[in-house]
Amino acid sequence: MEMAEAFLSNGIETTLLHRSELPMSRLERDTRQAAKDALVCHGVTFVPMSIVRELRADSTGKICEVVANTGSCKTDLVVIAIGVKPNTGLARGVGIRESSHGGILTDQRQVTGIDTIFAAGDCCAVKNLVNNKWMYIPLATTASKQGWVAGENAAGGSAVFKGVIRALAVKVFDLEIAQVGLSSKEAEDTGFSVVTESITGNSKIGFMPGNARVHVTLVADKKSERVLGANVYGENGAVLRANTLGVAIQQKLTIDELAQLDLIYSPPFAPLWDPILIAANQTNKRLRSTLR
Amino acid sequence: MEMAEAFLSNGIETTLLHRSELPMSRLERDTRQAAKDALVCHGVTFVPMSIVRELRADSTGKICEVVANTGSCKTDLVVIAIGVKPNTGLARGVGIRESSHGGILTDQRQVTGIDTIFAAGDCCAVKNLVNNKWMYIPLATTASKQGWVAGENAAGGSAVFKGVIRALAVKVFDLEIAQVGLSSKEAEDTGFSVVTESITGNSKIGFMPGNARVHVTLVADKKSERVLGANVYGENGAVLRANTLGVAIQQKLTIDELAQLDLIYSPPFAPLWDPILIAANQTNKRLRSTLR
Repeated sequence: MEMAEAFLSNGIETTLLHRSELPMSRLERDTRQAAKDALVCHGVTFVPMSIVRELRADSTGKICEVVANTGSCKTDLVVIAIGVKPNTGLARGVGIRESSHGGILTDQRQVTGIDTIFAAGDCCAVKNLVNNKWMYIPLATTASKQGWVAGENAAGGSAVFKGVIRALAVKVFDLEIAQVGLSSKEAEDTGFSVVTESITGNSKIGFMPGNARVHVTLVADKKSERVLGANVYGENGAVLRANTLGVAIQQKLTIDELAQLDLIYSPPFAPLWDPILIAANQTNKRLRSTLR
Repeated sequence: MEMAEAFLSNGIETTLLHRSELPMSRLERDTRQAAKDALVCHGVTFVPMSIVRELRADSTGKICEVVANTGSCKTDLVVIAIGVKPNTGLARGVGIRESSHGGILTDQRQVTGIDTIFAAGDCCAVKNLVNNKWMYIPLATTASKQGWVAGENAAGGSAVFKGVIRALAVKVFDLEIAQVGLSSKEAEDTGFSVVTESITGNSKIGFMPGNARVHVTLVADKKSERVLGANVYGENGAVLRANTLGVAIQQKLTIDELAQLDLIYSPPFAPLWDPILIAANQTNKRLRSTLR
């Protein structure tokens, strides 16, 4: 999606063939719809449910056409995004354990199953602190912290890397999109009974210059009432608000505790009731009505 | 300060006579210096250590001159900011208890010393969750939440308002300034042994358009290693970052736990090491060297 934005900004006609109905499969449905709308309204041709069958070359050997189940498309340039897989051949060769979701398994000191071998970065699995499962989450923040810990420990230290909640963000033209913690599907898949609620609030007081709408979706566990995950999108301050929710998720706050947070109110920066608090209060109501 | 900005933006020559050396006495010294610099570099005449002795009127009775210990100043308009005091006369009249720092004392249900009388808002004291002391902190966020709780309970409910960390922000021209939790002085005054550390980082990856410097000061307790307070200032995303620190303070995180937070990295929004994490790591080093 970032490449699509870069192409469009340089006046290059751009078509995005996507495998599913909407982009970013791990996000909540309304966030995914917003991402697609941002692409389309800026001029990207989005073709859903597309499986590429063939890349056709002209007589000089240059790719000139993409053939998919949804039709074919003439082109000068193809960018392929097919995900990331850890290259663990070296580790496997010496018998190091791997996670079933991919990536080398380590302890909190980044020591592998062989106690003289450390591992860090995109070749590693990482513990998700929300559901305590090992997942494959190749992110630079994780790699950087793991590298620090592995390095310190390889030099005789005793540093610890506890895990992540998974915190990520992407910019689609003017739209900020962030996800922290588990998606509703991931939460359900790991045994939580999930309540999901979405709200739209203002990034600042309504009359302030630069005010924009901020959309928050919270995923909570019916039983413990913990916040498990959140999506935030909008044009102003969405991503940094997601970090505030990220700390709440990492600290295992309940929806009620989230609603009690003391957040800044100041007209140029945040309304009296920050979108985070509105989302918490609405999710609280949803929880109560679900439990009745 | 906000009035000074409003005057300057409307082309009105503005002088700020201030009682102390720097504005905003509860903030850390470097934050206060930054606030003063922002005022001065935008054209406000800042006169420190000023005590106003007299407002002189012309023959028509209109104020035309301000006389202070630091000199006198011709003027067409005077704005006086002398702080806020709770008007508790009504409560005192019926024997309701007050905090020694000002404001009506209530329990967590916003019930006063008289159990049929509720109180909420700027007339009330509020419990500071960082040091568990009753303080007078008249802020709209507090008033609004207390009002909600008092109203629900007056109608037979059982809502609870636990207290605040004090989270506030102000905009001085392009400079965002935020404070969460205790200042180093307040922390020392309530018995903490304090370590303070300041860092400057980038709001985004350095080459991204709109990147700005973000300055973070952390106040931590040497004994428990808890984060007690923070100042954040800068031109882009300073205030929303303060909220992330605010949750950490409210949850009584140690500096080490703060350094372990999983925060978003995404070039248009935050560098790989967010200024919050850099501040936590530097404060950790300061703590270790202080303890040696």
